[in-house]
Amino acid sequence: MSGEFNLIEKYFVGRQKQRNDVLLAAGDDCALVQVPQGLSVAISTDTLVAGTHFLEDADPALVAHKALASNISDLAAMGATPAWVSFALTMPEPDEVWLAPFCESFFSLADYFGIQLIGGDTTKGPLSLTLTVQGLVNPEKALRRNGARVGDRIYVTGNLGDSKAGLDVILSAQQEDKPYASELEQRHYLSSPRVLVGQALLGLASSAIDISDGLISDLKHILKRSNVGASIDVSTLPVSNELVQFLGSAEQAQQYALSSGEEYELCFTVPEQNLGAIESALAHCGTQITCIGQIRPEGMFEIHTQGKALDWTLSGYDHFN
Amino acid sequence: MSGEFNLIEKYFVGRQKQRNDVLLAAGDDCALVQVPQGLSVAISTDTLVAGTHFLEDADPALVAHKALASNISDLAAMGATPAWVSFALTMPEPDEVWLAPFCESFFSLADYFGIQLIGGDTTKGPLSLTLTVQGLVNPEKALRRNGARVGDRIYVTGNLGDSKAGLDVILSAQQEDKPYASELEQRHYLSSPRVLVGQALLGLASSAIDISDGLISDLKHILKRSNVGASIDVSTLPVSNELVQFLGSAEQAQQYALSSGEEYELCFTVPEQNLGAIESALAHCGTQITCIGQIRPEGMFEIHTQGKALDWTLSGYDHFN
Repeated sequence: MSGEFNLIEKYFVGRQKQRNDVLLAAGDDCALVQVPQGLSVAISTDTLVAGTHFLEDADPALVAHKALASNISDLAAMGATPAWVSFALTMPEPDEVWLAPFCESFFSLADYFGIQLIGGDTTKGPLSLTLTVQGLVNPEKALRRNGARVGDRIYVTGNLGDSKAGLDVILSAQQEDKPYASELEQRHYLSSPRVLVGQALLGLASSAIDISDGLISDLKHILKRSNVGASIDVSTLPVSNELVQFLGSAEQAQQYALSSGEEYELCFTVPEQNLGAIESALAHCGTQITCIGQIRPEGMFEIHTQGKALDWTLSGYDHFN
Repeated sequence: MSGEFNLIEKYFVGRQKQRNDVLLAAGDDCALVQVPQGLSVAISTDTLVAGTHFLEDADPALVAHKALASNISDLAAMGATPAWVSFALTMPEPDEVWLAPFCESFFSLADYFGIQLIGGDTTKGPLSLTLTVQGLVNPEKALRRNGARVGDRIYVTGNLGDSKAGLDVILSAQQEDKPYASELEQRHYLSSPRVLVGQALLGLASSAIDISDGLISDLKHILKRSNVGASIDVSTLPVSNELVQFLGSAEQAQQYALSSGEEYELCFTVPEQNLGAIESALAHCGTQITCIGQIRPEGMFEIHTQGKALDWTLSGYDHFN
């Protein structure tokens, strides 16, 4: 059985082209990177634990994609350009049958976004992964949660709800025979971080967040930090045809869209005067965006369907609840 | 039982003074930090797993110190000035009896080194911690592993071997009655990262590493990266009087000094012409340094006692062996 050093050498070292701003990657006490003048470093850390965030026997290639994509999504939500990632892997024993497809998928996504693995740690213990990604962004323009103002329009990228349906399939064999079950299961793992959208929003959006806990739960982070309220029209929520077929009703698809976590789509707000500019700025990204509501004064939070009030009880995903 | 958000708010947010270079800490998708012109960012990641790196019932205050100190030690080994830390905590359930002393100790050490917690993640799962620390260093002067040259003197800071003896006490109740058992147990947890020494070595030492796997194992990283060999005189190895008393012989203490991991002392090499400058540069640090040998041509590796050859079989600590 190979030891820690061999494992790192074999699977993680020399797999990627060296970025010009990486002075030292693996092989010393620290990595060493350079930051261009005028840019700041955006940093985000996420942990995925087997049994909590993915099943022990989940496809390692899908786990790798999910782990890295969810982290890159945090950079996208700031409008940052991905640059470097540190990766801490804990596993019960060196399992090359697991590691080979994991690394293949990990480096494939990392290369796609030009993000270089600069270091990490491999340890023995229950399977889990912690990634720290770093990106570069102009600090004056970085998308924050605290800039939403009354009257701003609220947008989301892509479709919402598929991830939650995919999780239903993963957790219950009874769901596997429903329409589009396997497509939705794949979508739970294979999100596309909205990096290009985040960059296009710089200077135009007043706030942004990525949808990891669920639309309502994440939007409320923006509302709290911005001291504002919101009005959401559920009839406008973008849901896939596959989700409606899977659930059997458009209303249930809307409910999923409100609460589905781990979507890794962006939710952002746009001031009235930038609405035209947003459309053209996003034209080259090839990502659908949908206006789902408007920012209201603090304390006001309403979810309606074409003006008619709803009264669903929903909450986001909280790892300890 | 409190949820993830309350836990973070209560124990991790607003515990420290904001550094001037931190534009955003907790509360957004990413942290945002600024890097002064001319300096690079040194980054290191370490994971500690309950059952592998510490016992499940270990004092949380000691675990916090060990986790953060071992990470800061990597910055010290590059000569970097500590700046920021991201912290991912996985625990079976929100345990405030564990968290309160953990955070007290964590922030006490962080404040001592002027390092600010800028983000992280809390997740449900088997107890483990992953820290990513970042520091600032002049890239031209940063201490690397590849600069040792034939003839350079080899130094270590502090005493070696105590950490391994402390681990003996932790792992075997039979050791508890030996002399100085409790002092050595404390030292296993309470190392002092050699940050000031690392900074003082900038421009003077030709290479450096921190002793996490064991002196021989870590020195060999320097030798491999620098394409050189070494000669070590074990009679010069700095060992504490407590360690000699605990083990009952000076020779066994020397063996411990060669292989003891998790010491978090520095091992570094100094060219002949800088020997005088090193002594004065380190005078203000208050840390003992000891010359233990000399760099030799590649392929030569000898451990002797005052010129007499030894033949001990020793190896470092490898998490999968």
